[in-house]
This record gives sequence, C-alpha cells and structure tokens, in this order.
Amino acid sequence: MTDLGIAIERMEQLKESIDIGYLCICAAFVLLMQVGFAFLEGGCLRYKDMQSIMLKIFMNTCVTVVIWWLVGYGIAFGNDSKEFVGSSVYIGFDMKNSKHLAEFAFQTAVASAATSIVSGGAAGRMTYIGYFILSVVFSSVIYPFCAHWGFGNGWLMKLGYHDYAGSGTIHASAGMGALMTTMLLKPRNQRFNPKYSEHFEPNNPIYITLACLSLWVCWCFFNGGSSLGIANGASVFMSRAIMNTFIAGASGALTVFFIFYLMNIDQGNKYSLVMICNGNLAGLVAITGPCDNVDAWAAFVIGILGGMMMVFANRVLFNLQIDDPVDAISIHFACGMLGANLVSWFDMDTGIVYGKGGYQFAVQMLGSFIYIGWSAIIHLITLLFIEKIGYLRVSIEEEHEGLDPATMGCCAYEMVELQQ
Amino acid sequence: MTDLGIAIERMEQLKESIDIGYLCICAAFVLLMQVGFAFLEGGCLRYKDMQSIMLKIFMNTCVTVVIWWLVGYGIAFGNDSKEFVGSSVYIGFDMKNSKHLAEFAFQTAVASAATSIVSGGAAGRMTYIGYFILSVVFSSVIYPFCAHWGFGNGWLMKLGYHDYAGSGTIHASAGMGALMTTMLLKPRNQRFNPKYSEHFEPNNPIYITLACLSLWVCWCFFNGGSSLGIANGASVFMSRAIMNTFIAGASGALTVFFIFYLMNIDQGNKYSLVMICNGNLAGLVAITGPCDNVDAWAAFVIGILGGMMMVFANRVLFNLQIDDPVDAISIHFACGMLGANLVSWFDMDTGIVYGKGGYQFAVQMLGSFIYIGWSAIIHLITLLFIEKIGYLRVSIEEEHEGLDPATMGCCAYEMVELQQ
Amino acid sequence: MTDLGIAIERMEQLKESIDIGYLCICAAFVLLMQVGFAFLEGGCLRYKDMQSIMLKIFMNTCVTVVIWWLVGYGIAFGNDSKEFVGSSVYIGFDMKNSKHLAEFAFQTAVASAATSIVSGGAAGRMTYIGYFILSVVFSSVIYPFCAHWGFGNGWLMKLGYHDYAGSGTIHASAGMGALMTTMLLKPRNQRFNPKYSEHFEPNNPIYITLACLSLWVCWCFFNGGSSLGIANGASVFMSRAIMNTFIAGASGALTVFFIFYLMNIDQGNKYSLVMICNGNLAGLVAITGPCDNVDAWAAFVIGILGGMMMVFANRVLFNLQIDDPVDAISIHFACGMLGANLVSWFDMDTGIVYGKGGYQFAVQMLGSFIYIGWSAIIHLITLLFIEKIGYLRVSIEEEHEGLDPATMGCCAYEMVELQQ
Repeated sequence: MTDLGIAIERMEQLKESIDIGYLCICAAFVLLMQVGFAFLEGGCLRYKDMQSIMLKIFMNTCVTVVIWWLVGYGIAFGNDSKEFVGSSVYIGFDMKNSKHLAEFAFQTAVASAATSIVSGGAAGRMTYIGYFILSVVFSSVIYPFCAHWGFGNGWLMKLGYHDYAGSGTIHASAGMGALMTTMLLKPRNQRFNPKYSEHFEPNNPIYITLACLSLWVCWCFFNGGSSLGIANGASVFMSRAIMNTFIAGASGALTVFFIFYLMNIDQGNKYSLVMICNGNLAGLVAITGPCDNVDAWAAFVIGILGGMMMVFANRVLFNLQIDDPVDAISIHFACGMLGANLVSWFDMDTGIVYGKGGYQFAVQMLGSFIYIGWSAIIHLITLLFIEKIGYLRVSIEEEHEGLDPATMGCCAYEMVELQQ
Repeated sequence: MTDLGIAIERMEQLKESIDIGYLCICAAFVLLMQVGFAFLEGGCLRYKDMQSIMLKIFMNTCVTVVIWWLVGYGIAFGNDSKEFVGSSVYIGFDMKNSKHLAEFAFQTAVASAATSIVSGGAAGRMTYIGYFILSVVFSSVIYPFCAHWGFGNGWLMKLGYHDYAGSGTIHASAGMGALMTTMLLKPRNQRFNPKYSEHFEPNNPIYITLACLSLWVCWCFFNGGSSLGIANGASVFMSRAIMNTFIAGASGALTVFFIFYLMNIDQGNKYSLVMICNGNLAGLVAITGPCDNVDAWAAFVIGILGGMMMVFANRVLFNLQIDDPVDAISIHFACGMLGANLVSWFDMDTGIVYGKGGYQFAVQMLGSFIYIGWSAIIHLITLLFIEKIGYLRVSIEEEHEGLDPATMGCCAYEMVELQQ
Repeated sequence: MTDLGIAIERMEQLKESIDIGYLCICAAFVLLMQVGFAFLEGGCLRYKDMQSIMLKIFMNTCVTVVIWWLVGYGIAFGNDSKEFVGSSVYIGFDMKNSKHLAEFAFQTAVASAATSIVSGGAAGRMTYIGYFILSVVFSSVIYPFCAHWGFGNGWLMKLGYHDYAGSGTIHASAGMGALMTTMLLKPRNQRFNPKYSEHFEPNNPIYITLACLSLWVCWCFFNGGSSLGIANGASVFMSRAIMNTFIAGASGALTVFFIFYLMNIDQGNKYSLVMICNGNLAGLVAITGPCDNVDAWAAFVIGILGGMMMVFANRVLFNLQIDDPVDAISIHFACGMLGANLVSWFDMDTGIVYGKGGYQFAVQMLGSFIYIGWSAIIHLITLLFIEKIGYLRVSIEEEHEGLDPATMGCCAYEMVELQQ
C-alpha cells in the first residue's frame, strides 16, 4: 500500500473513533434521562407514592440493560438486514468491534427510556412483581421489534418509513403501553371523585421542573445521537436535530403555558409551572421523529401542534375517566403519533407542504399504526397474564395507605424532629 | 484534483464535523445551566415564591430560544463583519450550513443563561407579564447587540476588546439588568426591617448546592465552548479555559468560606453552605472573561479577587438598601465588571503584570462601561414602559401571601397527610 | 517536508485535539460526581446533618483542586517515569501543553471524587477544621502517590498491576480512609442503641436516587475517561468500559434488590429504594478496575459479586459496631478490594478463568494491599494529629442538636409558615 493509502486508512479509523466517542457521550446523556423520568413521575404522583415509582423506574432501567445484553440488542440491531428480526450479537457475542460496543450503550440507554415511559401507566397501584414482568416483556419483545423494523434496517425502514429518533417507534409504542396498562389497572381509587380531585394534583412541581429541564438537555442527544456519529456528513443531521429540539421544546412550552393562561383567565390561578413543563415535553416528543430533516420554522410549528395535542388528549382522557397519572399518555402516545405523522407534512425532501408526500404520508400512517397495534396486543396479553397470576394491582388498603409506607415502611423525605 | 488533495479536503471536512460535534455538546451543557439558575434562585428565595421564579426562568429560556431564532442570532452573529449589527441568518434563513446550526444551539443556550441572570432582580415581586416583556426585550435587543460587539466581529472586538466567554459582555450587562430591575421594583416588602430579616434567609441551601455544583460543571463548557471548536489549535484555549474554570471556582469558594468564617468567628454559626456556593460562583464569573489566556496562578488569584468582590458588593448593596434577592448583582454585575477588567492585568500576551497593557487596559475599561451603560439605558426604558402599563409589580397582598399560592394556588412541595 | 508529510502531521495534531476534547468532557462529568456524592451522603444521614456533609464535600472539592494544582498533579503524573514520585508539572509549571491542561482537569476531578469518598467516614460528627486538614493530607499525599504508582507509570504499574479506572487505586484506598476515620471518630451517639435505630435510617431516599442515577452516568466517564483519549485505538477500551459500566451497575442493583427482598420476604417492607441504589454503586465500584478488558458476561458476574460483597460487608460492619454512616466502607472499600482482585480472574488476556493468571493474581493482591496499607497508615497518623490538636470530633451537644443547627443556625430546608 502506498503511504497515501495508509494515511487515508488511518483517517477512516479516526473517523470511526470519533463516531464511537460521540455515541458514548450520547449514551450517557440518554441514560441520564432516567433521572428525569424518576423525578417527573415522582413529582406528578402523590407524596405517598413517590418512592414506589422511582423504584420501578430504577428497576426497569436495570432490567432493560440486562435484557438488551441478552437478547434486545440482537433482535433490534443484529446487523443482517433481515425484515423482521435481527440474528446476531446476542448475549454480547461478536461484539469485539468497538462500534458495536458504543452502539450497544446508546441503544440500550434509548431502550431504557422507552421502558420508563410505560411506567407512567403503572404509577401508584401496580405491584412491583407485575411491573417487573411487564418490563421484561417490553424490553425483550415489544420494543426490540419496533426498533428493528424502524431503525434496524427492518421492513418499515425498507418501505421508507422515516422516524429519526422515534416519535412513533419509541414514544407512540411505549405510550400505548402506558395506556393499556392504566386501562387494565383501572383508575386509582377515588381518582374521578370531584371531592378528592385536589389529592391528585402533582405533589412536587419543583421536581417536575428539575426533570423537565434535564430531559430537554438530554433530548438533544436522544435526537442528535440518532445520527450515530458525526463524521461523513452526519454532523449536519445531528446539529439540525439539536437546533430543532431547542425550538420545538420552546414553542411547545409557550403554547401550553398560554393555553392554560387563557383557559383560566377569569380565575386567580392562571399560571402553572407543571403546564409549561408538560408543553415542553409535548413539543419534544412531537419533534423527535421529524427532527433531522425539517426547517426551523417547521420545528416551531410542530412544537405548537404538540402542545395543543397534549392539552386536547389530556381533556379527552379525563372525560373518558382514563387515569393518566403522570400525563404519559397525552404526552408520549398522543404527541408521538402526531410527530410520526408530521414527518410526511414537514420533511424537506418528502413533505406535503413542499408539494410532495403522498407515499410518505401513507407509509408514516402505516408505520405508526403498526407500532401502536403491535404494542397494544402484546401489552394486553402480558397484562392479562399478570392479572391471572394475581400480580396486577396492589390491595385497596396498600393503595390507600400509600405504596411507600405500605411496601417500604417509610416516606420519601421526612423532616424528623430535630431533637431525638 | 490529486488523491492527496481529496484526502486533505476530507480531513478539513472532518475537522468541521468535530467542531460541530463539540459545539453541540457544549450547547447542551450550557442549556443545563437553566436547571442551575432555577434551583439557585428557587433556593435563595422564600419558600412561598419558589415556583414563581422557576416559572420565570423556564419562560425566559423558551422566549430566548424563539427570539434568537427570529432575530437574536442574526443581530449577534449574522456573519458579515458589520460594526454595529449583523445582517444575515434571521429567522433561520441561510442556515443550511451545519456550522451555523451548531453555533445557533450554543449561542442560544448562552443567551438563555444571560436572560436568566436578569431574573434575579425580578424575583419575588415582578408580574409574569411584565417579566415576559422584559425577557423579550433583553433577548431581542439588549444582549444580541452586546454579543455582536464583543463576540460577533463587531466594533469592540475590532478595537481589541478581549472577553473570552463574557465577564463583561454577558455577566456585567445582564447583572446590570438585574440591578435596574430591582431598583425600579423597589425592595420586597419588609426586606430591610431587621425584625423580619430571618424571613429573607435562603429557604433551601440544599437546592443552592445542587445548583452551584451543577453550574460549575456547565461553566466548563460555557467557558471552554467559546473556542467554538477544538480543531486547528483551538483545543489549547479550550483546555486552558477549563483548567482555569476549575481553579478560579475553587479559590473563589474557599475565599468566601474563610471570609465568612472570620467575620463570624465569635459566633456559633460561622459556617455557611450558601457562602461557599456564592464564592464559587463569584470566582467563576470573574474568570469567564480572562479564562483562555491566563496562567493557572492568575486564575487562582482571580478567583480570590472575585470572592472578595462578591462579599464587598453584597455589603454595599445591603447598606444602600438595594434588594438583591438571589445575590445576582453582587455575583454577576460586580464580578463581571471585575473579570472584564482583570483581562488587562493578567492576560499572558497583553497583561499589565507582564509589563504590557496600557492600550488593553483602556479598551477593557471602555468595553465594560459601554456594556453596562447600554444595558442600563434600555432596561430603564423598558421597565418604565412596563410600569406605565401596570405590569411591573404584583399587589402587596399577592406578595404577602406569596407568589406561588397567589398565582398558582399551590406550593412548591407539600407533604400532604398520608391518610386522605 | 513533502505535502503528504504535512498532511500526516496535521492529522496527528487533529488526533491530539480530539483526545483533549474528549478528556475535557470526561473531566466535566467526573466533576459532576460531586453532586452525586453530596446528595448521596446528604440523603443517607439524618436531616439535621445534611448541610454539614454537603459543606464538607464542597470544601474537599475546592481543596483538592487547589492542592492538585500545587503538588498533587505533579506527584501523580509528573511525566518522568520515576518509580515512587513524579517530578515535574508542579504549581502548573510546564503546563503550556494542552494535553497536560486537559489531563489536569480530568485527573483533578478524579482526585476530587476520591477525596469525597473519605467524607463518608467523617459524616455527622467530625469538625470542619479537622476534616479540612484531612482533605489536605489526602489530596496532597495519600492519593497522589497511589495514583502515581498505579496510573502514572510508577512501580506498581511497571510490575504489571492493572486497575483501569481504580477499584484499588481509588476506591479501596479512599474507602480505607473512610474506615480509619470512622473508627477513630467512634460511632455516632446512640448509633447502636436498638431503641434509636430508626433515627439512623436514611432521611431522604429521593436524594439518594438522584445521586445514584447521576453517579451511574458520570461513572461511564470515570471509567471510559481512563483511556485518556479515543484516537489510536483507545476507543475500543473506552467503549467497552462504558458498556461494562452499564451492565455491572444493572446486575449489582438487581442483586441487592433481590437479596433484600428475600431477606425480608416475611415482612411487609420487602422493597427498598436505598438498597437498589447501594447495589448499583457496589457493582460500579467492582467493575471500575477490570472494566476495560473483560467480557460483557464477566461484567454481569462482577456486578453480582459486588452486590453480594456490599451486603456482606454491611452486615459485618454492623455486627462489629463500626458506624458506616453512608455505607462508604461497604461500597468503596469492600467492593474496591473485590474489583482490584477480580481483574486477575476475568481479564481477557491475563485472567484465571481464561487459564492464565498466576502472576497477575499475585500482583493484584500485592497492589491492593499496598494501597490499603499505605492509606491506613497515613490516615492514622493524620487523624491522631487532628485528635491531638482537638479538632477530631464535635461536642456531644452539637451532635445531639445536629451539625446544621449547631454550626449554621439553620436547617437544610424549611417550610416556613406561609404567612409571615
């Protein structure tokens, strides 16, 4: 080989190293989202159930890591371009390659985030063992197939389904899991009794704020990391994804903030910290799918549409008396479906607003409905099984006492008397 | 083109990609500073006003992102080397280039941090609508011009004004905004009544600690990110900026810790978690301007001077009965002015201690006073307008009740009785 | 030089820049661990001692930064391959080189983390001045020599001692410091009086969760950063370290979670958020040493062994009536010793399970015992000196009242009556 040839080969190696380094950094930021989910859900529930949801989220994170090492990563990203399921890199086998090691970390962190979304539906009344089973099924079956089809060179991807960081593949499918879970669990006791409505207000808006601002930051890498690198032209998609994540998060937050203000303009309490947080998250979920290939103005519009969708879905669920304890369904399911389908409107290459898009519109619709259908069916089977073996819902006494004191014997934080 | 030419071109592309990746990571860390500001200010205020300041900070972040997309980034970094104002990349126009996409994210995050500094002066008594207007003006007019002049190849930069990450350009100008805001708002009710002094102690030092340690980490990228990349020799400025950020933060913290200890040596309570935090922040603000080109020992000294300046400014403000609810003025304004002017003393190339510096001294002085003058004037006009339309200060009843219960109907965190 | 020669030289410069950028990012994440330590220890103690431990951690961070600039970095990484102590780069001298600037930031952040581990033994009863002295000694003498011997091309490294990110070099030696400190301080008053056992339960599991999840993320860079770069083939060790950090953290957490469940299966309270956190940390400490060169299945096993070791050490310490207020000894000392010695079992090149390892086994054993012996002796001398000058332990009255009210006059967070 010539000297020049050697130099070029070294540069290719350097490029790969850079992509690996970038992917590992993204992986860490996405793992940090678990802090966000824990504090978001802990803050939204009642004080007496805070620890229990955080334990569930911590548990599902660990479960996902172990399961993805065993089978999840293989199903989703076993690199052989099979239509329905990957067929290599199971149990860490064949993963000497550092690109795989880094991608494992990133994709496992993403899968952990997806699993945590489901926990929203389980909040405040599901048993730990039941939830443990559900997490195993979600991270070994439900999500890995979604990921393979849409991200891992599977059949949807081959059809042209485009969902960059997964509005449909992740948020809609996991949000559907939260919906199925909450419907089978039934609402929390007295949830829709107007006399007790105050009891179900978020107990700690400060934690929600901590969570939401942290999630916004991490979301930059959730979206930006989907480029899987920065070399070879990937940096343009990465940086556009991050810019759009900034903009849609902001426009979503402001939208919901103003909607809430206008809806309550005659009352004293027309401001809400929780609402600005929820709007932010709604915008982020909606931009997740289209983030790589839409203009900044489109990101602005998508954030607004996400915020409106969140408020709308929240009202519908409330009126249907479906208990959505941490707004997981109205944020992840509703805005996830929205985002997956907005790709076909705003994508710079294939979007309807650019005069294209008949085929893309159909394939996005197909993909998003496949995802929620698949998720709904497997969740239903799993939850019915869990119900059958008696681990679905805690007893009414435990729920009334609160899951923390009933199962852990102590509360989230206590200001014990200073004198012993 | 020869093969070698192609290889070199590819390497240049790779360099650009690396800079973009680095800049996006910095952008995310700087956005994370909003968590820091929210918890710093929330912890410093009274319990009953916590949510209101966090809502303001969340709102100003979103406002800044939207405004910077529309006009702010164009004014500041429209790349045409105009003296007073940039003239391109407005409304995301002409931003196909990925360098611009990444720089937008970074500079917008920096602008959001600047906007949050102003919120310190508004804490505990400004209306949301008034503050919303102020944030719009700050992020569309006040700060973008500061940024263009000092960072964006504007007239101050051309004169030789050197303020790497913005002690003057950002901290002094935004700190002056906090000062003008607090002066026009007047002190919080009973603030300087000694009978109630305990009520104005920070309500949550734990949150302040969370904020301050997080800000220290993020500050590494606030300072280090100002290299706008790592290739082509930029890594030396970046890494020196980070090393100096470590050292000045540490020496500032220890300085204020010991000053507080010595001032209270005869009392029981001579230790303060809040003081070590404030000293840390003071050191960080002071090193922000000179961080790229001073020696480690100079960073150590600058941190100490920052800590002393903070304590001094704090005493002066208290004696003048200017209410500085979250110490924003004594930290950002006073130490920002200090840092901008210490460049001319400690800079390795132009500093007075190295026997140079007459011209640099003059231009740093000029720049820093231009910044605070400009900021003071526009803030004054804006605040008088807000007062005129009746949105400056909340009613005495709302303030007395607390902004959280008065405007949101609930408190930051409640430990509701466990039994419903 | 030929054109090709110039191009290759530029590529080498680019590689160095990339390594520097990567190292600075790792440095920031490792500094962020101080938030983790502060909230972990604050959450584990009694409410009345929260601020005091956070102040100690903040103080020791600042002390370490200053000391490492003065002498620590020189002792540890003065680059001259001396056996026992480095002999350059003291007081920032000779640090114009940007590789040194970045490595200073990273290694100083690591040293700060080490210093914070010791604070666990000092929690709840050591004076601030005594602890200040201890931090100075630890960061200027104890740890820098450990680092030189094991990381800085010193005698242990030359013997073949392999401890990638420092299970022995950092965790065991600092954990031994916590053990010596707690033994010389004696247990907190009434600690082993069964009547008061409830008073010593962690006061804030939510903070522990925040801490532990954040530490997990930062640990990726604590371990991954030990590659000191990503170019020239380092990315494979970096990415494998991160993957293994994911897996061992997860398996450690699940192990302790299930052990606790089984140990309490007949009781109501068989779930514990604190236990899953401690198990996670135990797995992380155990994988720290072997993380770069073990298979994923080995990381899984090492996490399990770490979790078991933590539970075992915790029981032993309790039965010996050694007060381990924040479980620093059972996590860092016990699992650190375990991790350092598991290298010789599971290392892919030298491990016993791969049929090798007699020599490696001996050298790992030697190294880990040298570390804890060295740490024990210097800690003992220092602590006896501190006792002699009367700054070891606070008065019984102060301890009873709580360190926060006794030394700071206020509590960590107060929910002051809403009406003034």
